[in-house]
Amino acid sequence: MMPKYVYTFAEGDKHMRDLLGGKGANLCEMVRMGLPVPPGFVVTTDACRAYLSTGHEPAELAEQLGVHLRELEARTGRSLGDPADPLLVSVRSGARFSMPGMMETILNVGLTDASVVGLVRHTGDERFAFDSYRRLIHMFGKTVYGVADEHFEQALEEGKQAKGVTSDQDLSADDLRTVVERYKKIFADHTGRDFPQAPHEQLQLAIRSVFDSWNSDRAVVYRRQERIPADLGTAVTVMSMVFGNLGADSGTGVAFTRNPATGGRGLYGDYLPNAQGEDVVAGIRNTMPLSQLAQLDRGNFIELVSIMERLEHHYRDLCDIEFTIERGKLWMLQTRVGKRTAAAAFIIASQLIDEGAIDPDEALRRVTGAQLMQLMFPTFDLERAPAPLATGVPASPGAAVGHVVFDAHRAAAANTPTILVRLETNPDDLPGIIAAQGILTSRGGKTSHAAVVARGLGKTCVCGAEALDIDLHAGQLVVGGTVIREGDLISIDGGTGKVYLGEVPVRPSPVLRHLTEHPTEAATDPLTAAVDRLLRHADYRRRLRVFANADTPADAARARRLGAAGIGLCRTEHMFLGPRRALVERLILAETDRERQNALDALLPLQRDDFERILAEMDGLPVVIRLIDPPLHEFLPSLHELTAKVATARAEGRDPGHEAVLLDAVSRMHEQNPMLGLRGVRLGLVIPGLFAMQVRAVAEAAAARVAAGGDPRPEVMVPLVGAVQELEAVRAEAQRVLAEVENAPHIPIGTMIEVPRAALTAGEIAEAADFFSFGTNDLTQMGWGFSRDDVEAAFFPRYLDLGIFGVSPFETIDKIGIGRLIRIAVAEGRTARPHLTIGVCGEHGGDPDSVRFFDQAGLDYVSCSPFRIPVARLEAGRAAAITKQ
Amino acid sequence: MMPKYVYTFAEGDKHMRDLLGGKGANLCEMVRMGLPVPPGFVVTTDACRAYLSTGHEPAELAEQLGVHLRELEARTGRSLGDPADPLLVSVRSGARFSMPGMMETILNVGLTDASVVGLVRHTGDERFAFDSYRRLIHMFGKTVYGVADEHFEQALEEGKQAKGVTSDQDLSADDLRTVVERYKKIFADHTGRDFPQAPHEQLQLAIRSVFDSWNSDRAVVYRRQERIPADLGTAVTVMSMVFGNLGADSGTGVAFTRNPATGGRGLYGDYLPNAQGEDVVAGIRNTMPLSQLAQLDRGNFIELVSIMERLEHHYRDLCDIEFTIERGKLWMLQTRVGKRTAAAAFIIASQLIDEGAIDPDEALRRVTGAQLMQLMFPTFDLERAPAPLATGVPASPGAAVGHVVFDAHRAAAANTPTILVRLETNPDDLPGIIAAQGILTSRGGKTSHAAVVARGLGKTCVCGAEALDIDLHAGQLVVGGTVIREGDLISIDGGTGKVYLGEVPVRPSPVLRHLTEHPTEAATDPLTAAVDRLLRHADYRRRLRVFANADTPADAARARRLGAAGIGLCRTEHMFLGPRRALVERLILAETDRERQNALDALLPLQRDDFERILAEMDGLPVVIRLIDPPLHEFLPSLHELTAKVATARAEGRDPGHEAVLLDAVSRMHEQNPMLGLRGVRLGLVIPGLFAMQVRAVAEAAAARVAAGGDPRPEVMVPLVGAVQELEAVRAEAQRVLAEVENAPHIPIGTMIEVPRAALTAGEIAEAADFFSFGTNDLTQMGWGFSRDDVEAAFFPRYLDLGIFGVSPFETIDKIGIGRLIRIAVAEGRTARPHLTIGVCGEHGGDPDSVRFFDQAGLDYVSCSPFRIPVARLEAGRAAAITKQ
Repeated sequence: MMPKYVYTFAEGDKHMRDLLGGKGANLCEMVRMGLPVPPGFVVTTDACRAYLSTGHEPAELAEQLGVHLRELEARTGRSLGDPADPLLVSVRSGARFSMPGMMETILNVGLTDASVVGLVRHTGDERFAFDSYRRLIHMFGKTVYGVADEHFEQALEEGKQAKGVTSDQDLSADDLRTVVERYKKIFADHTGRDFPQAPHEQLQLAIRSVFDSWNSDRAVVYRRQERIPADLGTAVTVMSMVFGNLGADSGTGVAFTRNPATGGRGLYGDYLPNAQGEDVVAGIRNTMPLSQLAQLDRGNFIELVSIMERLEHHYRDLCDIEFTIERGKLWMLQTRVGKRTAAAAFIIASQLIDEGAIDPDEALRRVTGAQLMQLMFPTFDLERAPAPLATGVPASPGAAVGHVVFDAHRAAAANTPTILVRLETNPDDLPGIIAAQGILTSRGGKTSHAAVVARGLGKTCVCGAEALDIDLHAGQLVVGGTVIREGDLISIDGGTGKVYLGEVPVRPSPVLRHLTEHPTEAATDPLTAAVDRLLRHADYRRRLRVFANADTPADAARARRLGAAGIGLCRTEHMFLGPRRALVERLILAETDRERQNALDALLPLQRDDFERILAEMDGLPVVIRLIDPPLHEFLPSLHELTAKVATARAEGRDPGHEAVLLDAVSRMHEQNPMLGLRGVRLGLVIPGLFAMQVRAVAEAAAARVAAGGDPRPEVMVPLVGAVQELEAVRAEAQRVLAEVENAPHIPIGTMIEVPRAALTAGEIAEAADFFSFGTNDLTQMGWGFSRDDVEAAFFPRYLDLGIFGVSPFETIDKIGIGRLIRIAVAEGRTARPHLTIGVCGEHGGDPDSVRFFDQAGLDYVSCSPFRIPVARLEAGRAAAITKQ
Repeated sequence: MMPKYVYTFAEGDKHMRDLLGGKGANLCEMVRMGLPVPPGFVVTTDACRAYLSTGHEPAELAEQLGVHLRELEARTGRSLGDPADPLLVSVRSGARFSMPGMMETILNVGLTDASVVGLVRHTGDERFAFDSYRRLIHMFGKTVYGVADEHFEQALEEGKQAKGVTSDQDLSADDLRTVVERYKKIFADHTGRDFPQAPHEQLQLAIRSVFDSWNSDRAVVYRRQERIPADLGTAVTVMSMVFGNLGADSGTGVAFTRNPATGGRGLYGDYLPNAQGEDVVAGIRNTMPLSQLAQLDRGNFIELVSIMERLEHHYRDLCDIEFTIERGKLWMLQTRVGKRTAAAAFIIASQLIDEGAIDPDEALRRVTGAQLMQLMFPTFDLERAPAPLATGVPASPGAAVGHVVFDAHRAAAANTPTILVRLETNPDDLPGIIAAQGILTSRGGKTSHAAVVARGLGKTCVCGAEALDIDLHAGQLVVGGTVIREGDLISIDGGTGKVYLGEVPVRPSPVLRHLTEHPTEAATDPLTAAVDRLLRHADYRRRLRVFANADTPADAARARRLGAAGIGLCRTEHMFLGPRRALVERLILAETDRERQNALDALLPLQRDDFERILAEMDGLPVVIRLIDPPLHEFLPSLHELTAKVATARAEGRDPGHEAVLLDAVSRMHEQNPMLGLRGVRLGLVIPGLFAMQVRAVAEAAAARVAAGGDPRPEVMVPLVGAVQELEAVRAEAQRVLAEVENAPHIPIGTMIEVPRAALTAGEIAEAADFFSFGTNDLTQMGWGFSRDDVEAAFFPRYLDLGIFGVSPFETIDKIGIGRLIRIAVAEGRTARPHLTIGVCGEHGGDPDSVRFFDQAGLDYVSCSPFRIPVARLEAGRAAAITKQ
């Protein structure tokens, strides 16, 4: 069968996005609904893919194009290139996923020296006709042949100067006729050929250039950033032109069925009389609110309102549209389910439930954890904000205020809050990035070094604010005439990319406040109420439990209020800091068993107290306590620091004293690769009594809680196990200790699965484990063979640029590689022990994209930082709602 | 069906080792052959396992023991405990694998106050009877009740002192009767019960104590060291006693069918008239060569020779036996395939082919790569060696001579060859171990710190030489009256564990010399001829190809002579050392693209020359060249060193100059975990032009070789790939470079599989790879999550002691965990690309135990250091011969 490469609008529908692109499929859908759409057809993504893979259009395409063009000419009663009354068409890209502004559009295809005369005759508007021709030559030259805008812009400017006017509107038909001649000359000079006077050739070249635009640099970068597959290709929509610039009874506009910023009900949009769509986009003239159309053209306003109501009812969601009124006749040029802010997403989803349009599961599918995350950051009080100085790429969320610093070392040394401002950052800047409140760059996008590192650190970041003219030598930046010097205060918004001069007041997140402080009360503002409603439905729907990573009683309490059903990771190493460091030092420097045991004995009551307070906060809920994981030398000063101190002391003739002793110990314990060294279970097996002390502290704390009438549910987790024999050895010792503590409740003993070999031998390990908890950070580090600390700054940005990652595997779980280890461990662990409890306690546990994977992989719970618990609850509910669908 | 726990000797055969143990199965076999074996029966390993898992003998055992005992009594015409003519039995352990001296034996079971009278009557030898009773009480007290030897030894000593004699032989029957009474008193004092006078109880307790001996500390340690599974259990052989100490027509001996030390043909053994076996073992009296038995007792000598010929013919291998002549009657007490030295193993295997006893495949199965490895080390010229001072555990092979040093720091600082002598070593001693020629300790076995580290470093090591009395404070060691001080010369033999005073002359290995210098000529000595013969058969039989890891023309030439069929790993980083370090420094410090490219341009001709010379040596054979792998900062001085230098210079008021610049660069490039940092393919993707320079050098070198009439076969290998996208990016660049070099041959591009994720996504990666080569060192490091450098010293000895490893996974591939990654990668790589070439180039490629795994896993080749090529060839042949069987 001959492949079908071209569909008229009547042949498609909204489900055919893969083949016809989003724009094409929705145009087809509007035609099926009987809405007024200018006639046209769609060239499929199949045709694009065939072209891109072979380098030429498939043979059948030309033939099918001819058939559809003749049909279009018949329907409109006009012919392409007709010198009497020509058919003109627009040629637009339209892919499966919206890529706004990333690909190409050419309007007025079909105008030639001959047909422009026909357009004059038909419209009676010579000025309009030559203006249209001028626009075609510019767009065609630029899009098909890559002639730079500036050549055309300069010629137009010269035309205006010659006439002594400043606005395009003041150019007459004759002026524009001259501009057209200049444009044709520019075209010929830059392309080596005359502007094509065969309208079919124009159409063919225009379609090809849309195909080619799929692989333009900016489209490639955009897809990489938005994680859109590279091999989809674009469809091409060919539609007969309608004109909003044919007089006062014409115009053009954009509209939304609800307010996309706030979610407020009712039409929302802009209208511009006597104009084309590109004028609205270019912002050359001021638009009027859509409501004013009711005064200008009541009939079309009523029709538009009716159409938009039908669209929203039909799509069961907020829609946006582009429309044109040509001499009193309303035409729909585009519709789609409209983009919206995070807040609007929640409010609209909740409204649509109330309106009976969707059920709560569908509402859950329409919001994302990433949106909820945005709503949990503080924001600027925009009513008290000045106009933004510039807008960049919103690379890492938050609202940061600080003094401008142009140098990372100065930022690192500053005593006041700073915003580090750089052209772009590199690994040398890391200390400054860590110290600053926020990072602002004038170059680079979401995969730039600054963006990747800031997200990793949870820092606010705005990248690629190209309007900033940064002069490091002069120590200043200039933007729109404003000069900002080092030390001046600025504010940057990581959620919107906006940059403000001075300190903009920061408003805490009402959502976060409600969830943290009054989780059981009804919310008073509509946004918080909507979030609360969907979170409750997510809780009802989800299979995954959500636990928290929490090491202190305060964190535990916060996590519980935010909805944690337990603690999935209570790290004990944080409990060895501060004044207890001295005890760890004694433990390390102990030369006899007795000295070591004395140090452990001194630590025991402190640890017991730690655990007792956390168990009290989490009474009745599981608390998974991980035995100490990091290498002990992390509790001593660094080798580097001690080396310099001792060398300095000796050079100055002083006795370095205790520092020399410490240096000796640290040198002896120094590891080339501490991540791969003596830590976790290895430490527990090599240092006698260390794990036993911790297990005893857990058991005694639990016994004390039982005695106090509590319901403690501690579990003991062994880190870094790679072989069942390690776990067996620790388990035997732990059980011996537990048996010695009277009145302790039953305490399960489980293991982290964070070493690749543990996942590969999970069937064996499950025999000795009451539960598994994936440590996805280490599993990612070891599975990929890179350490986050070392590589995130050094080569992740380059890897993101090369497309080796779509996203850092430390942000979102690598489903193919690391995910395979997880699937193996789940399957084989459960085969060995069918009721094995399995969770994840790495940072991925709170990553929206990863939570769905963990749900699919069959985990029982995810554990994440308290702040991310609502996000994980929502995503766990969405995972269930999506699976159910 | 009732389990059968007891077999008479007539019921078993040599194939029943699992059930009857090696000793029991071979006794059965001798009975089947009609040889004179004292009657008896075997209690199975099943019974032992049942006892060990439940803590008591299975119910059926007592019943079956009764039946077999009655049958034995009927056959011998004597009854256990009979006061007229008692049956006496020996009770011996015997497991599947030989564990010499590790478990228990009790002789003369059945003697009581009553039956000893019968023994007197029957033998007419009162002295003999009470000596036998004395021995039973001692062995029984020690083995069944744990009474210390010293109590019995002291009582015997006192008996001799009372009589005023020094030898046991001089004690009369009456004296021994008194000793028996003393022994019974000691027994009662230490056990709280009288010595059992019920002979059936004696037998039951003796069997139980043999069962228990399976889990004695020394047996557990031995099994762990020898990698014998812990759950096999032991069988128990019960045999009627025969006595070699009943006069001049009695005696006992051990014999081998060939010389187990040299492989020489002909009987070899020792005989001791009028003695029991334990006297031979104890070395109390001097034995005579077996040949003298021909004079003493020609009839039995001829019978013994005939039996041994039959045994060797039957077993088709060297056998050893224990025998006793009781009043002129020859009895066979034990036989087994005898242990032998590495040299004897090769010589005997070759002889047996000549004799038509075995075919070459069988010969191959009877020698091991580990034996061949021993033969390739230099040895001491034992004819010019003094008597050894002491013998320890041969923990790491080689022959080392050096000055005694008792302190690791002094060893590290010494300018002369040293032997580091310690009670035991710990991680602090590492610098000394690295610097020393060899390590000698007085404590610990094959899994001790010294042993593990020495094997990892390839250092000669003798451990646990308990006869050494080391006094660190006095700075001396005393052994057998000899005092050795720091600085004295000693020689240690890592192959035999022997320690010699002074410098013993070292003899290079004739095998290594032949294989290296005259591989194509016939060998002149029998050992080298035998090795050569079996190696040639291995080459004929093996499926695996053997490549070499070689970085220099000299190594390549050596590898080729040793039988390498190519270079599987040519590391290029070694080529950046020496004077070229300055160029790498320029590369690292380059601030502009131009400076960096200049540094690369300067490196290009040097690399091209490196490759050209290696390709010339390996003309016609593949040479797999790995692009640079280690982090660049490895080519600069260490951070630690620079920090101290700069701090010192500054404290002294000097300008640290260039060192401060270097410190700055090194600090910037410093990585917390360089193993997991910017190296391998990451480096190639981040530093523009680096890999391209290397690929160009390979291609230009190959083109030059073609121009010179050669047949260069280089291949390019990309290190540390974790994702196919990395390989695709490098491959695209490499192919662009290759296309630019005229007259270069086709150069395949493949990848290391050394990152776990690479193995897990091998199907994808194979699409972009012409070959795979496993880097098992990194795969082990990342799969287990520990770095060899950091952990081998820190916790491997502890892990070996705990049985977490049977052997370091860096010595022998971890088949369960890391092996699974290899199997996954092989299967999925070949599915994606059926003719994918797959090899291994980690150190495991030359490990005997690992080579068989690689054969089974379906690899095409192993690549190892030149020295190990013969070992790999042999093991590859054995793998095929074993599979064929």
